[in-house]
Amino acid sequence: MQGKRAADSLGLAAVAKRAGLSTATVSNALNRPQIVAPKTRAKVMAAIAELQFVPNRSASALRNGVGRMVGLLVPDILNPFYAAIAKAVGESARRNEYVLALCVSGDDPEVESEHIRVLAEQRAAGAIVVPLAADDTRLNHLRLVGAHPVLVDRHWQVDDGCSVMIDDVEGGRLAVRHLLETTDGNILVVNGSGDIPQCADRSRGARKALEIHGSSSSRLTEIELDEMTIEAGRVAVEAIDLDEVTGIFATNDQLAVGCIRALEAKGKHCPGDVAVVGYGDLALASEAITPLTTVRQPTDVLGRIAFDVLLDEIERPSGHRHQSTLLDPKLVLRDSAP
Amino acid sequence: MQGKRAADSLGLAAVAKRAGLSTATVSNALNRPQIVAPKTRAKVMAAIAELQFVPNRSASALRNGVGRMVGLLVPDILNPFYAAIAKAVGESARRNEYVLALCVSGDDPEVESEHIRVLAEQRAAGAIVVPLAADDTRLNHLRLVGAHPVLVDRHWQVDDGCSVMIDDVEGGRLAVRHLLETTDGNILVVNGSGDIPQCADRSRGARKALEIHGSSSSRLTEIELDEMTIEAGRVAVEAIDLDEVTGIFATNDQLAVGCIRALEAKGKHCPGDVAVVGYGDLALASEAITPLTTVRQPTDVLGRIAFDVLLDEIERPSGHRHQSTLLDPKLVLRDSAP
Repeated sequence: MQGKRAADSLGLAAVAKRAGLSTATVSNALNRPQIVAPKTRAKVMAAIAELQFVPNRSASALRNGVGRMVGLLVPDILNPFYAAIAKAVGESARRNEYVLALCVSGDDPEVESEHIRVLAEQRAAGAIVVPLAADDTRLNHLRLVGAHPVLVDRHWQVDDGCSVMIDDVEGGRLAVRHLLETTDGNILVVNGSGDIPQCADRSRGARKALEIHGSSSSRLTEIELDEMTIEAGRVAVEAIDLDEVTGIFATNDQLAVGCIRALEAKGKHCPGDVAVVGYGDLALASEAITPLTTVRQPTDVLGRIAFDVLLDEIERPSGHRHQSTLLDPKLVLRDSAP
Repeated sequence: MQGKRAADSLGLAAVAKRAGLSTATVSNALNRPQIVAPKTRAKVMAAIAELQFVPNRSASALRNGVGRMVGLLVPDILNPFYAAIAKAVGESARRNEYVLALCVSGDDPEVESEHIRVLAEQRAAGAIVVPLAADDTRLNHLRLVGAHPVLVDRHWQVDDGCSVMIDDVEGGRLAVRHLLETTDGNILVVNGSGDIPQCADRSRGARKALEIHGSSSSRLTEIELDEMTIEAGRVAVEAIDLDEVTGIFATNDQLAVGCIRALEAKGKHCPGDVAVVGYGDLALASEAITPLTTVRQPTDVLGRIAFDVLLDEIERPSGHRHQSTLLDPKLVLRDSAP
């Protein structure tokens, strides 16, 4: 608040008055120092120092031993899922007067390690991390300097620290339950690699829905694709015999759009012949020619909770207890599977 | 480099050895302090302090008066254009061992001011800013504490500071020149509001292409839409008589996709009857059913140059001269206007 008042009252005019110069000269000294005499520049700098209009939070934080910076480490900022998390975490950080250091690993473990090192060196108060691998020994670099790591979208033993995840088993279950309730035939799951934890969870959820519904497991077929793109989905589904299939669960929205294009190429209608459910609720889902029924991930809540538990860990060192939070996704109904 | 070596050699084992404890106890002291006796915790902390394995860059930066943090202030991180800039700036920052503070204004001038105040209070070395308004008096808050602002995607008098922009007049010219060279009829420009500088520039470029081509200005019609979405483009173009039109220049990719849908609804073929050129080269452009010919903005170069000029301003205070950089966009040919 003190900082806000100080900044509000800040102005070139105040500096000019203090320095006994015109505001134009002060402006020049700041913006075009090369055209202002060194002596005049020194006067301006002295006036600024005297007025101390902007408190140095960085210095006071250091004196108090509490940094006002937290890191956000994500694999890719162009991926809308991570961008949405960045937006939510950034909003919470701002409200709590923390600076958010954006660290993008670009799926490179070495770059990830480097970011962790720099966050430790800069004495970040904590970091919200979507790690590339389950291996968390590198996160100890943060703990060793008193910075608190919180995992997002990855699991941690609760003893190791706080984590916030979306329940992808539940997401898969919601998607396939909807297809079982609205269509009569077989279900095709178009998935990414089972080595990706999220893909494995979505598949598990799909089978769980079948089981709860009391259907035979033979009603469900699953294919695993190396790439989760529109094109990969289209090519794979065009090559498959869909005679008994009335519902497709694609484990991301790109695959779902590809599936719909494959159906069209085969002369089948979506949703009339085959209903399609996607996953993610990207912009793509609502912008597609056949808008997608899809599983929405609560990225805003995810980011907010991640920041809240981090703040608790930073600011209540004795009272804090680690916690794992699992958030429920939601099915959004649109034309592709009404 | 010193920090990197230090971090590489860091390990629980070293701390355990120094403290005369097991690595398991050190791990517990860091991760589950509640189950470790205060005396043991103190031993671990003392060993860590003695080893000083992670240099405190924040403290040394403060002593030297040089911060290793720069800000990036953008209106929206979900917008792929700004996300791409964030990616490029982040990469440059990392290579130069700067922390990048992500500040998202959410199109709210008050939030933008708050971010500027916090960056000043934290003594950022500089900030790369996509400001909401041309009014740059608030950026003086940064200059007053010695932080250097660089504008991106907005113009500044070169005396006021460095700026990096994409030449949208050139982008508009490239788009319409291509339509004039490949089709014979009239051109329709589907634009956003002329109050948006980028939209005004793209329109100016379109007219420039017509002039250079020696065509009558009557060959070009322009409509201005309040929203630049797929739906807005579709609705607007469905309502227009396209009898003489053989080319559409839509000033973003969303509008272009909407135009193609409107053409289909009217029983016209793209590109056979009407060729369509978009702007932006978003993921959408290559993923559309009719992949878009579009104007690609060099966001990677934009981000890199913005960081380079900022670094020059930070690290060469006497040698630095402000500069305005204008980058050329590029036409990417795909099916919608081959």
